[in-house]
Amino acid sequence: MSKAVKANAVVGQSGGPTAVINQSLVGVIEAVRKTKAIGKLLGARHGVSGIVSEDFIDLGGIDRALLERVAGTPAAALGSTRDKPDEKYCHKIAKVFAKNNVRYFFYIGGNDSADTARIVNELANQAGYELHVFHIPKTIDNDLRVTDHCPGYGSAAKFVASAFMGDHRDSAALPGIKINIVMGRHAGWLTAAAALGRKDATDGPHLVYVPEVPFSTKSFLEDVKRVYGKLGRCQIAVSEGVADKTHTPIIAALAKELGRHVERDSHGNIQLSGSGALGDFLADYLKKRMKSQYKSLRVRADTFGYLQRSFPGFASPVDQAEARECGRKAVELAMSGNVDGSVAIKRLKGDKYKVEFVRAELKDVARVTKDMPRSYLNKAGNHVTKAFFNYALPLTGGLPEIGKLF
Amino acid sequence: MSKAVKANAVVGQSGGPTAVINQSLVGVIEAVRKTKAIGKLLGARHGVSGIVSEDFIDLGGIDRALLERVAGTPAAALGSTRDKPDEKYCHKIAKVFAKNNVRYFFYIGGNDSADTARIVNELANQAGYELHVFHIPKTIDNDLRVTDHCPGYGSAAKFVASAFMGDHRDSAALPGIKINIVMGRHAGWLTAAAALGRKDATDGPHLVYVPEVPFSTKSFLEDVKRVYGKLGRCQIAVSEGVADKTHTPIIAALAKELGRHVERDSHGNIQLSGSGALGDFLADYLKKRMKSQYKSLRVRADTFGYLQRSFPGFASPVDQAEARECGRKAVELAMSGNVDGSVAIKRLKGDKYKVEFVRAELKDVARVTKDMPRSYLNKAGNHVTKAFFNYALPLTGGLPEIGKLF
Repeated sequence: MSKAVKANAVVGQSGGPTAVINQSLVGVIEAVRKTKAIGKLLGARHGVSGIVSEDFIDLGGIDRALLERVAGTPAAALGSTRDKPDEKYCHKIAKVFAKNNVRYFFYIGGNDSADTARIVNELANQAGYELHVFHIPKTIDNDLRVTDHCPGYGSAAKFVASAFMGDHRDSAALPGIKINIVMGRHAGWLTAAAALGRKDATDGPHLVYVPEVPFSTKSFLEDVKRVYGKLGRCQIAVSEGVADKTHTPIIAALAKELGRHVERDSHGNIQLSGSGALGDFLADYLKKRMKSQYKSLRVRADTFGYLQRSFPGFASPVDQAEARECGRKAVELAMSGNVDGSVAIKRLKGDKYKVEFVRAELKDVARVTKDMPRSYLNKAGNHVTKAFFNYALPLTGGLPEIGKLF
Repeated sequence: MSKAVKANAVVGQSGGPTAVINQSLVGVIEAVRKTKAIGKLLGARHGVSGIVSEDFIDLGGIDRALLERVAGTPAAALGSTRDKPDEKYCHKIAKVFAKNNVRYFFYIGGNDSADTARIVNELANQAGYELHVFHIPKTIDNDLRVTDHCPGYGSAAKFVASAFMGDHRDSAALPGIKINIVMGRHAGWLTAAAALGRKDATDGPHLVYVPEVPFSTKSFLEDVKRVYGKLGRCQIAVSEGVADKTHTPIIAALAKELGRHVERDSHGNIQLSGSGALGDFLADYLKKRMKSQYKSLRVRADTFGYLQRSFPGFASPVDQAEARECGRKAVELAMSGNVDGSVAIKRLKGDKYKVEFVRAELKDVARVTKDMPRSYLNKAGNHVTKAFFNYALPLTGGLPEIGKLF
């Protein structure tokens, strides 16, 4: 009967998918199997919504080969959710945990998920219910505090950097102005990664605009004219979230100037993801303002969209290994005593890239996000610095090689 | 002095880039080096425009390691052009060839390039100037005649199929309707490739729309409602060139219905590439028509854009090897006697995928393009058949593995 009294564990995934979010899931599964101190490991379908509806999958019997395939597959294998539980919702979660003798909760997600984990943990503490809650970081936005970087970012950075490298060869072969819109509503980490394949000043992107720097259409136009006048081409990386000094998304100003419609969500917020509008507007704006000078000007815009977080078979091996280890580490930490927290990656000093995995407090990771430091952006605020390269390049695990004839 | 009298060769690249267009270039360089019968091999910068302006690079001294890096790099390493030479332009080309003792001309491109090669060849014949002209096929559109398939297609197909596989896991994790716009103005080959990673009916794409089938917004809406009602999600592949029964691009009808602006080029043609408008319009159309039934409906659109033809480090190994061989074969054929033509890939009968490389007549490849046969599309015209899988899957050289938990 000793098996029957073993405590159970729940694991869930939340928020926007990444290419390595299932590495962390498989890390949790592996480590739970190893401990033998945990009874059942239940996977909650679609995160917290699957917990309150008790929509669980028993993750015990899945064979090794399938687990490895799942680990290599982008986007939450358990399903994800956009639910941001309030205290009432968290009470329901705690109730389901008590009913099912769940004493371990692993939640893979961003800062909202860390906040959910924090609230659930506090409710359990208040009720005197022993629960070990661990948040496992993931986000292509790379905007979580404490951790040096977030699992999911390295793979998205590799995708975006590679996309810019190939696209710039395209631009060099058929010259013109090319705008690529990169994900990132508040932080520019992923857009900055566009530059990681750059070897010299002729390589693209020639200009990089992130939400941390107020965007001015006037400076933008001047920047583009300068580069285009010099090189005869200009490749530009723009964060979907670029906004002016008053924090108004720039797409609103462009829509007004061009007399265009702009799609809003049910809360009245301008829809930034899953639409090509910002890129199209910026392209139309440049055409409008530059056509008198350059008659046959070729301006194109691409919005990279969901491929940045879901493209398969192209993840960063460094990111994959770290995401797996974050999952394993969460279980190890949870079993190590009466602790809770979030797993953080700590970069060790030295010439060679090396990290260790440590515990962070949930409250230090929850809610507030982390912008890029100013030292990673040049003075003009339209490109990245060498310090950013040193920070981000190792996370990609290497980029494709490019050969040029001129 | 025998070296001085050797005839020279020119190689150029034209049209939209592919991931393997430089494999063919390197194939030409390799084979020319091997023959020793050719004096200089000149690379024309930006295709025919580089010939008439005598903007050549001597490709003789480039070391092996750089050549291999170039071969693996997407987009024309010599630069590309959109020039479609008329007879007068071709006269200029012939003149430059005579001046530089050029007796071999290798032109890597689509059907327009084959036509340029054809005209230049005829002019040389008329003038009694001995010239060996070979067209080397490349296009992600896969729409050249005679050849079983085109170098460049397999890699683009691999990219698009993989993108749909990952994106569908994203859609399954956070359910909704997802539209992905794929390149292809006249032919649906690349859009059809979206389905190549599909293992069962729950996998996306659930619907595939190609230009070969007249597009009806009414049938589209019915199709989407049916799939969404059944699965709670719907992933859709749409060619950028879908048009109604009267061959009017569907984007025009949608712009009218939604009261939106649509960008046109200098010839008044609606701009299909380098814009997210079609996807955005289709998404807005579905929202408008389905919101009454599904209040919190999530509809998103991505336009894959130039990544389809320029993404690095992800080419199909089958496509790479074939593109290289097409380059080599063109040189071999040109040296084999007084012949000219285009290299075509012939698929051999049998269970295992196997091809050989043969000569086709320039006139049979030039100008007219090849649509998908009706047998590759289902009866309803909204998906592909098993016959298409058999045709296209081997060209990708294999797709990423996907692991699912439910």
